[in-house]
Amino acid sequence: MEAKRSLLAIFLLLSFLSISTAAPTRKTRTRKPCKSMVFYFHDIIYNGHNAKNATSAIVGSPQWGNKTILTGQNHFGDLVVFDDPITLDNNLHSKPVGRAQGFYIYDKKDIFTAWLGFSFVFNSTQHKGSINFVGADPLMNKTRDISVIGGTGDFFMARGVATLMTDAFEGEVYFRLRTDINLYECW
Amino acid sequence: MEAKRSLLAIFLLLSFLSISTAAPTRKTRTRKPCKSMVFYFHDIIYNGHNAKNATSAIVGSPQWGNKTILTGQNHFGDLVVFDDPITLDNNLHSKPVGRAQGFYIYDKKDIFTAWLGFSFVFNSTQHKGSINFVGADPLMNKTRDISVIGGTGDFFMARGVATLMTDAFEGEVYFRLRTDINLYECW
Amino acid sequence: MEAKRSLLAIFLLLSFLSISTAAPTRKTRTRKPCKSMVFYFHDIIYNGHNAKNATSAIVGSPQWGNKTILTGQNHFGDLVVFDDPITLDNNLHSKPVGRAQGFYIYDKKDIFTAWLGFSFVFNSTQHKGSINFVGADPLMNKTRDISVIGGTGDFFMARGVATLMTDAFEGEVYFRLRTDINLYECW
Repeated sequence: MEAKRSLLAIFLLLSFLSISTAAPTRKTRTRKPCKSMVFYFHDIIYNGHNAKNATSAIVGSPQWGNKTILTGQNHFGDLVVFDDPITLDNNLHSKPVGRAQGFYIYDKKDIFTAWLGFSFVFNSTQHKGSINFVGADPLMNKTRDISVIGGTGDFFMARGVATLMTDAFEGEVYFRLRTDINLYECW
Repeated sequence: MEAKRSLLAIFLLLSFLSISTAAPTRKTRTRKPCKSMVFYFHDIIYNGHNAKNATSAIVGSPQWGNKTILTGQNHFGDLVVFDDPITLDNNLHSKPVGRAQGFYIYDKKDIFTAWLGFSFVFNSTQHKGSINFVGADPLMNKTRDISVIGGTGDFFMARGVATLMTDAFEGEVYFRLRTDINLYECW
Repeated sequence: MEAKRSLLAIFLLLSFLSISTAAPTRKTRTRKPCKSMVFYFHDIIYNGHNAKNATSAIVGSPQWGNKTILTGQNHFGDLVVFDDPITLDNNLHSKPVGRAQGFYIYDKKDIFTAWLGFSFVFNSTQHKGSINFVGADPLMNKTRDISVIGGTGDFFMARGVATLMTDAFEGEVYFRLRTDINLYECW
């Protein structure tokens, strides 16, 4: 009788534990972000006349292109380096909270599409450290997902997905990207 | 007597659990892939005469190079942007299942070696989403391993290793890469 | 009485297991590195007169720059491809243990700042495989953290943080970077 009771207790315990032991792994694999943030960054491409305000410049172009005007064929082959202010709202003139630094390459002849490698670099009371991004950016889609591949400082070892949205653009000189960052690995 | 039996049962339970509790972690660290896929992609470099068919173009080159012909010294310094069709078999004319988009840079004077940053972008009934790659590509080796550093959509948060193999090449205009993708982190 | 003793034993067991089952996850999230290594790499930029010794070259530049001399405004827009020897100590003439291959782009007008994408490629008795890095490099800071985003071979699936330190520089032609690699995910 006692033995049976013990066995029952052990059985219940086992059932309970089989759930709790699996939990740590399932927990790290949930699609609920461990951190979510929204930022805007602002790109002003050098066009030969705006050296003072420009935050980016064409530094590579195909044989048929040049470095002051984005080339035809959907800018295919233009490589742009940028150092853009990051703001918390969609106002270019808001106080920057960091810098978006890196490059993009227009990589398709038929439609606007780019490939991005860049970092958000923060050094404020609010955030210190960097978040590193890489991914394809099919610009004509309303939202585009790229990868958060790593981070340092406050974002040590971060991984996740960032959703880019073109929030505004003016001709081929200014554009503003809304960036919704969702981290799924936080340390 | 009953107490001894209970203790024995608990001891056995413990032994059992010490295995099962460790399993989740060991499981995520196994080198057995959680997903394996094989694709081919096809690169046709612009050479001044093939604008219609070309899927890539030289957009950066060293002081001694130019943008229509890959430069000497094993193309050291040539930066190529590409938007290449991905197929399931090794036939350039098979229906593409996605696009390989990004860039490579020849980075060594003595032998052919490149550095790659690119994405596989899928938007078909079979696959939706992207896989992001980065790594060194010592072209003369039969197989070369690069990193899968992230993914979106169907490949959300993927990590792994991709093995590249040059499946064919014609002069310095066309080459075809077989890509064996093994993911070790699937969400 | 026996039943109570069994329950006590089970309770103790539970307490014990609740610690041990959580451990695997906490363990993978500790900030104690699973592997630490220190390397130096040496960059000699082509300047028009050092073709023989140069290990890197400017391959992209803004409209106002050129490919033999790093441009003004803190080199903003210069894209450099490199294939640099890696050594275990700070001596350029020590036997290389691997090659650092990839690129950097100077990305800011006001101060020296670069963005890096590169790999350490090893093929020696000591190490075989590659480590892939991406990140922002604010050169004027004594130490700069970038991300280890993946690895192959001996560094299969590695993730971590690398701390860069400028160990020496001579004019705008030679510089040496100390790289402290700390991996927090080892397979």
